[in-house]
Amino acid sequence: MMDRTSQEAEIIRLLRANGEGHVSGQTISRTLGISRTAVWKHIVSLRNAGYLIEGSPRKGYVLADRHPVPFNSVEITSALDTDLIGREIFFYESIDSTNTKAMELARSGAADGTVVVADGQCKGRGRLGRGWYSPPGVNLYTSIILRPAIPPERAQAMTLLSAVAVAETVGRFSPVRPHVKWPNDVLIASRKVAGILTEMSSETDRVNFMVVGIGVNLNMDPESSDETRRVAASIGKENGRDVERTNFACTLYSVFERWYKTSLKEGFKPVYEAWKGYFDGVGREVRIKGFTNTEGICLGIDGEGALLVRRPSGDIERIISGDVSFSTL
Amino acid sequence: MMDRTSQEAEIIRLLRANGEGHVSGQTISRTLGISRTAVWKHIVSLRNAGYLIEGSPRKGYVLADRHPVPFNSVEITSALDTDLIGREIFFYESIDSTNTKAMELARSGAADGTVVVADGQCKGRGRLGRGWYSPPGVNLYTSIILRPAIPPERAQAMTLLSAVAVAETVGRFSPVRPHVKWPNDVLIASRKVAGILTEMSSETDRVNFMVVGIGVNLNMDPESSDETRRVAASIGKENGRDVERTNFACTLYSVFERWYKTSLKEGFKPVYEAWKGYFDGVGREVRIKGFTNTEGICLGIDGEGALLVRRPSGDIERIISGDVSFSTL
Repeated sequence: MMDRTSQEAEIIRLLRANGEGHVSGQTISRTLGISRTAVWKHIVSLRNAGYLIEGSPRKGYVLADRHPVPFNSVEITSALDTDLIGREIFFYESIDSTNTKAMELARSGAADGTVVVADGQCKGRGRLGRGWYSPPGVNLYTSIILRPAIPPERAQAMTLLSAVAVAETVGRFSPVRPHVKWPNDVLIASRKVAGILTEMSSETDRVNFMVVGIGVNLNMDPESSDETRRVAASIGKENGRDVERTNFACTLYSVFERWYKTSLKEGFKPVYEAWKGYFDGVGREVRIKGFTNTEGICLGIDGEGALLVRRPSGDIERIISGDVSFSTL
Repeated sequence: MMDRTSQEAEIIRLLRANGEGHVSGQTISRTLGISRTAVWKHIVSLRNAGYLIEGSPRKGYVLADRHPVPFNSVEITSALDTDLIGREIFFYESIDSTNTKAMELARSGAADGTVVVADGQCKGRGRLGRGWYSPPGVNLYTSIILRPAIPPERAQAMTLLSAVAVAETVGRFSPVRPHVKWPNDVLIASRKVAGILTEMSSETDRVNFMVVGIGVNLNMDPESSDETRRVAASIGKENGRDVERTNFACTLYSVFERWYKTSLKEGFKPVYEAWKGYFDGVGREVRIKGFTNTEGICLGIDGEGALLVRRPSGDIERIISGDVSFSTL
């Protein structure tokens, strides 16, 4: 049986498919295999969610055109083509942090692929205890719960996988090819367009669950805030026209799912190869602040996703954590 | 200011130090720097906790000898000589799992070194989703919250450190030298005397906190249960006399603290060296069930705590996770 969101998404799909034509309550009831009373309840619920659904006793229902299209779990579900990522969606108008909520849900047993999405975050979190600027109504803030059978050592690989999925998705919406910064930022023209915060709960040798938090600057104006001025970019501002959030989110889930399944079947080698294609740091000077500090020339990543740095002494150091900055080109 | 447990532990120390002599309320009040009313409240609380404290209006208080000594946070605190591990103690007569409770406390911000101790566990947990047999009144079940500044890759090292600390402590209470099984069991005469379950919450490149759960079979009779018959040992049964739990716990915290501080200062090399001294698997046939299965001859551990196995093909495999079994000697 479909859950409420799936049924309502199906109703919206039906109404949209019929454009300005009416769809009878009976057709909806038959198509979804639910009672007329259930149909009526869903229509009420969709109207409460902001959909302008006109009803006439004789002809049935019609969805009045509405712009902008709302951003909610019904929209995402109605546009989704995955079978794992996003099949369960927790949507919030406002939340402290999608990652915090997803960690909670995962502890309570939420399934592999469950996602949390928010219109805005009041305590958006980034890596290394930093914040993530999360104004409402303009960007994508989502966290994906994963339950891969991997040891914690492979978690970094999952972060690189996420960066690849985000970069590929950004690339489909932006004429400018994005780059990745090790391990997990996605940049357009050297400015941050997306960030990824991967958290996990694990034993020392197996991951219980991971939460991949993804923030993508879609339509905000980076110049409107001191936090983002000169360091952030948004796809919409780069393009000169807004990115439709539902479309972006569904594309991201779909691309992510493909990479996730690939990694479970073939390991992370294809992920690393794809990641290298988005990385422009090889041969550049790099500084890493972390448990220890390192400086040198970046040589790329190794077969386990660690950053390789040739130090002035000639030694090659393998970096598995820390905050990376490249000298400006 | 000392917390309640510390003050009550101090009172018990004072009374014990005076043996059959009385200690006046005024002396206690002066020694602890607290009011006479506070002294009286602590005496009531200690009596409620089962201490037989006799009071006489003129002479003061005397602690009636009592055997067995109770096992609680006052006893542990009064015998503790650490300055980090166990300075904050959460003691439970019965609990589902000390690790589950410690993970909760850590999420709420419990300090580095905080410990959870239980007299018995009703859902004691072991590695790989298994249970840990946890009858009340006889053994030690404790979880230590740690906040080391390390990446998740080093978490395995912390498990080996815990195994070393447990093995060293067991060795002080047992005439038979214990062995370790990779990564985290401690054995006496090939039977499990202690198990360690390390769990953590982390970002992909830094640990937020770890919880090291330690169960040690001190005085139970392994033959009394189907779960432990033929596979478990207890120190008390090996020795032919009971191990005092407070003494064991405090020794363990003290030994653990020394190794923990060493690792923070000098890295894990001394830990690995000590671990090797307790390991008797080198040269033996070994099978590992994990994400993939491996068989071969055990070569020991490498510089990062991974198990090295020479497969029949001659290839050397580096094992970072899984369930290890050695062929019987």
